[in-house]
Amino acid sequence: MKLTDPDRLFPVESAVRTLARELYESVAELPIISPHGHCDPSWFAKNERFPDPAQLFVVPDHYVFRMLVSQGVPMADLGVPSVDGRAVEDDPRKIWRRFAENYHLLRGTPSSMWLDHSFEHVFDLDERLSADTADAYYDHIDAKLAEDAFRPRALFDRFGIELLATTESALDDLTWHKMIGDSDWNGRVVTTYRPDNVVDPEFEGFADNVVQFGALTGEDTSTWEGYLQAHRVRRAFFKAYGATASDHGHATARTEDMLQADAAALFSKALAGTCTPDEADAFRGQMLTEMARMSLDDGLVLQIHPGSFRNHSASVFAGFGRDKGFDIPSQTDYVHALKPLLDAVGMEPSLTIIVFTLDETSYSRELAPLAGAYPALRLGPPWWFFDSNEGIKRFREATTETCGFYNTVGFNDDTRAFCSIPARHDVARRSDCAYLANLVATGRLGLADAHEVAHDLTYRLAKQAYRL
Amino acid sequence: MKLTDPDRLFPVESAVRTLARELYESVAELPIISPHGHCDPSWFAKNERFPDPAQLFVVPDHYVFRMLVSQGVPMADLGVPSVDGRAVEDDPRKIWRRFAENYHLLRGTPSSMWLDHSFEHVFDLDERLSADTADAYYDHIDAKLAEDAFRPRALFDRFGIELLATTESALDDLTWHKMIGDSDWNGRVVTTYRPDNVVDPEFEGFADNVVQFGALTGEDTSTWEGYLQAHRVRRAFFKAYGATASDHGHATARTEDMLQADAAALFSKALAGTCTPDEADAFRGQMLTEMARMSLDDGLVLQIHPGSFRNHSASVFAGFGRDKGFDIPSQTDYVHALKPLLDAVGMEPSLTIIVFTLDETSYSRELAPLAGAYPALRLGPPWWFFDSNEGIKRFREATTETCGFYNTVGFNDDTRAFCSIPARHDVARRSDCAYLANLVATGRLGLADAHEVAHDLTYRLAKQAYRL
Amino acid sequence: MKLTDPDRLFPVESAVRTLARELYESVAELPIISPHGHCDPSWFAKNERFPDPAQLFVVPDHYVFRMLVSQGVPMADLGVPSVDGRAVEDDPRKIWRRFAENYHLLRGTPSSMWLDHSFEHVFDLDERLSADTADAYYDHIDAKLAEDAFRPRALFDRFGIELLATTESALDDLTWHKMIGDSDWNGRVVTTYRPDNVVDPEFEGFADNVVQFGALTGEDTSTWEGYLQAHRVRRAFFKAYGATASDHGHATARTEDMLQADAAALFSKALAGTCTPDEADAFRGQMLTEMARMSLDDGLVLQIHPGSFRNHSASVFAGFGRDKGFDIPSQTDYVHALKPLLDAVGMEPSLTIIVFTLDETSYSRELAPLAGAYPALRLGPPWWFFDSNEGIKRFREATTETCGFYNTVGFNDDTRAFCSIPARHDVARRSDCAYLANLVATGRLGLADAHEVAHDLTYRLAKQAYRL
Repeated sequence: MKLTDPDRLFPVESAVRTLARELYESVAELPIISPHGHCDPSWFAKNERFPDPAQLFVVPDHYVFRMLVSQGVPMADLGVPSVDGRAVEDDPRKIWRRFAENYHLLRGTPSSMWLDHSFEHVFDLDERLSADTADAYYDHIDAKLAEDAFRPRALFDRFGIELLATTESALDDLTWHKMIGDSDWNGRVVTTYRPDNVVDPEFEGFADNVVQFGALTGEDTSTWEGYLQAHRVRRAFFKAYGATASDHGHATARTEDMLQADAAALFSKALAGTCTPDEADAFRGQMLTEMARMSLDDGLVLQIHPGSFRNHSASVFAGFGRDKGFDIPSQTDYVHALKPLLDAVGMEPSLTIIVFTLDETSYSRELAPLAGAYPALRLGPPWWFFDSNEGIKRFREATTETCGFYNTVGFNDDTRAFCSIPARHDVARRSDCAYLANLVATGRLGLADAHEVAHDLTYRLAKQAYRL
Repeated sequence: MKLTDPDRLFPVESAVRTLARELYESVAELPIISPHGHCDPSWFAKNERFPDPAQLFVVPDHYVFRMLVSQGVPMADLGVPSVDGRAVEDDPRKIWRRFAENYHLLRGTPSSMWLDHSFEHVFDLDERLSADTADAYYDHIDAKLAEDAFRPRALFDRFGIELLATTESALDDLTWHKMIGDSDWNGRVVTTYRPDNVVDPEFEGFADNVVQFGALTGEDTSTWEGYLQAHRVRRAFFKAYGATASDHGHATARTEDMLQADAAALFSKALAGTCTPDEADAFRGQMLTEMARMSLDDGLVLQIHPGSFRNHSASVFAGFGRDKGFDIPSQTDYVHALKPLLDAVGMEPSLTIIVFTLDETSYSRELAPLAGAYPALRLGPPWWFFDSNEGIKRFREATTETCGFYNTVGFNDDTRAFCSIPARHDVARRSDCAYLANLVATGRLGLADAHEVAHDLTYRLAKQAYRL
Repeated sequence: MKLTDPDRLFPVESAVRTLARELYESVAELPIISPHGHCDPSWFAKNERFPDPAQLFVVPDHYVFRMLVSQGVPMADLGVPSVDGRAVEDDPRKIWRRFAENYHLLRGTPSSMWLDHSFEHVFDLDERLSADTADAYYDHIDAKLAEDAFRPRALFDRFGIELLATTESALDDLTWHKMIGDSDWNGRVVTTYRPDNVVDPEFEGFADNVVQFGALTGEDTSTWEGYLQAHRVRRAFFKAYGATASDHGHATARTEDMLQADAAALFSKALAGTCTPDEADAFRGQMLTEMARMSLDDGLVLQIHPGSFRNHSASVFAGFGRDKGFDIPSQTDYVHALKPLLDAVGMEPSLTIIVFTLDETSYSRELAPLAGAYPALRLGPPWWFFDSNEGIKRFREATTETCGFYNTVGFNDDTRAFCSIPARHDVARRSDCAYLANLVATGRLGLADAHEVAHDLTYRLAKQAYRL
């Protein structure tokens, strides 16, 4: 028995399935372009073995552990590090067993598909994970992890990754990227400029961060002009480590294009910690437009990831901190929110702004119409809960008719779960080919065109949009 | 000719249809668990014959008569009782004929599927209802209704209902449930605690209701503490008649967790009739959290049914009162609205809160992410207009990838149309099995797992979630 | 090779495809009823040849040219007339070549399907448009356009159009409709009353327009009563040129039913140019209710097209004016917005109000429930970006279960691209038949009923709803 079906995610009707398989086979082996994600660059810098199966598959993957939490398993029992000093499980085998006993909770989810893919294709396992197979799995994976072939760089090469972008804070020293660059390994791991902690007045320690930002750049970040200049300097530093993009995770998609004097005044309030929530939101919005203007000069692509209500549970945040599966999508307006930015720079063909959403209702109503009009705007792939088979299907069905394929930018895996990268790209390739096969079978696209589009969605568009 | 296709609602591709049929056959005969609905308990207490075909199928079913009204048939002509004294049709045969003449208006709706199912499977009819067959239908059904086998208790048993929950106001004396309990009939009909009329400051007669509530419970409901205590007493009374859940129909999903002194002050304003609309909404929201806290003590499941704009037409409400097909869904926020409740009790694994929605956009954006994280939260099945084939399909497609199957709670028929109960559960079973068959056929779920999930969705999850 | 697949848009499973084809064949040749659109009546009045291929297919079609603009082609290079005096391309062959070189951008869009349909079925072309075939296409189409058989009236007859409604401003003199009526040609081209420029206080030149409105009607439009009377007079004038409907394009679906004295006061402010944005919106909302009351007298159908954020790009609007592909859908509330109108006239069976939306989330949540209840309300077909195969599929799946087929009104092409009319109606017929075939194949509709419904959706409902 195999864990994965070779025809998974293809349409069920035989002739269309054949078409989908044919399209998929033409792109299945293309290199992986991963232009946005959250892998830890120290893996590739140090190239140490991954510690154990639980640390590889459970503890860092909030997609996985939140599902067990949702059914009553305490987060501490899954080894998730606490920030309030409470004890958490430190026996990886016990964590693994709890995961295995509850593996049925993931039925029908993309997580189970990614995990089964990794188990089978990375670790050569072929029985379903369960309470019964938990220990055998653990021993098998743990033994593999001790082999050189399962160290980060070897897996990177084996996965066929042509480029992997990580995401670092504006205050990061990029030491791991330097180590990677100085090493004899040829894997291409680049950084991305993520300045939320010096852009968001509501970020913990914002004012101190801005001081540190000044120290790092040698600019006087107590003034608006110096602060902007510090961004320019830091963006150049990130570019030196391969960055081709910046990234911005804001609660809303709000943008502003205020007078510079007003922006400077708002910046002073932000530093003083006296912004109202609305003013903090306005400042973040102004900074998107400022970043876009810098992009016109330095060529970095501007990514906007709005609409997540971060750290929804006060008690989980107090006990375990950020990124624990309690970031919840919320309704997001784009049509009004992006207007200041688009009026400022939206008609610039030399600029690329990639907008993401967690609010699927905006695909057909707002984002595809906007991306199908403004030259600077591109529509990012399905994000977070939506980079799944159904999520990708709904994305294509809701956007293609309005903005076509060429205002989209290929796939992002956006993951911190390294082994899921090939699985996620495989799901995206299969889902896109299934969609294309349906278009061909219903007379909406010629077969030769479908082959070209499949290649574009898998490879070309990501390289082009992210300027790789 | 038969009215219903034995393969209805199954996928069209032959191999997937076979899979769906196989899954369906394994659950088709399981008992019906109906943990939430609006049947009249007096039917089972008195066990009298249903008066006539129009009273059984047309007059009480606002799904049906509103569709005729929408095409210009006056509500009075369909025998819907007026509250303003206007004359309404009292000849059941005339009502039936009007219904039959307009039966084509229901083409493509779940109502027509439920009705055809009842006509064929309950009444052994096999020709389509139309103007031509109206009288034959009437005579046939009317004759059947005179038989003992068509009395409420006999039908209940024949339908294979293991448990039926009705819904009663907090002021109800539960006399019918007492009669059922005292009878020699073994059918399990339980009540549900629905306190809207003593919880909603905008409910007609709220202050008087609260006085009556005090009288019923022997508590001083003029004080906040006494009022809360009255709820505790009344919940215990409902539990004695089998209640395992409370239910709350609010205009929004707003919850609050204010200081008790502030809640007490707001309660005083509510009693005095001086709440602003926003304060009334806040009070309802506070009561959800209070109810959840009581649930931690007494184990009742908390159901929240928000987002219906009740009695949208002023003239229909003035002429015919509540529940006349003019309750219209409206946009509903959950991510902000539920936060106070979830911060208060959301991490409690011993609590079950079941949230419903009429706003399908919240499935993937808000409700599945929340239910996939908080241990206390479960996602209710598609409600009202959405407990249909397409509605169930969209529900599963939008939620499973994010919260799996085990944060959902099986099916609710939520009906006051008794004969539609087996038809509705059949639609749910077929729709779920069609969904599961597609997962199997596309390599997203193993067949053995699919069988287990089919059983869970049909039977186990409802019993477990509702503690039956 | 053909450009279009004879089985396009039909379901892929063989038996269902056969059903869909059978249903389609029964309606494929029915006459086209086009009750709402934006063709230029001067085409049929003057019956001159269309100037060239670029003027026929590219320059006036904002669906098409915005897609090229979105990928960096300057609007001026596509010959779109400027309003700021900048030079634009005036060589139609150069425009055509740019279009042809970028034709791949339209892959997967309804525009490519409409265009291919026109190229093949109107112009007998059978190779895909591309850079290579650009000149051959140009020469071929240009030669055809010189033939009498390709003049507007001949195409109108060849397309099988039984009726075409155009849309004219309340200030239009309807001279072209008069010329058509006075001619010996029998084609039925009627007008539609579109008073936005005398109803919307924020319309450019509103106060002047109202003065001109008075001059045209002989009424004193400086008073509220005279202004309303002018509408009555003008509606009668439009009726004399065949109008059976009015149409209203508002930013929101807001309606009001204020006291006449308050409306009169608001009208004075509107004339004085002192309305706040909210007051302007309220005035537009009041006028919808006034129009509905006039409809009760004169029988015109009331169409409401809300929810488009017009002219989103300030620079495109400044450079090229209205209708340039930068009108973006926005979130639209109906359940609260329509209540004043529906309380005033919603229960009138003699009135027809057709509501459209660009916000698909409102289909199942608000519009189908409203249309399935109020006798005066009908649900317009998918509009703008959504009159596509997927758009129509989502429309039927989201609305049919709640409001059935008979609260919908057939198809609108809503186009200013004349040659796309048969293509668009063909897409609608195929999409509807595909939907119906799926209902039949899954036991949700009988085959005979499906045939009747197919005919209704294609022909009868449009004639009936628009009183043609």
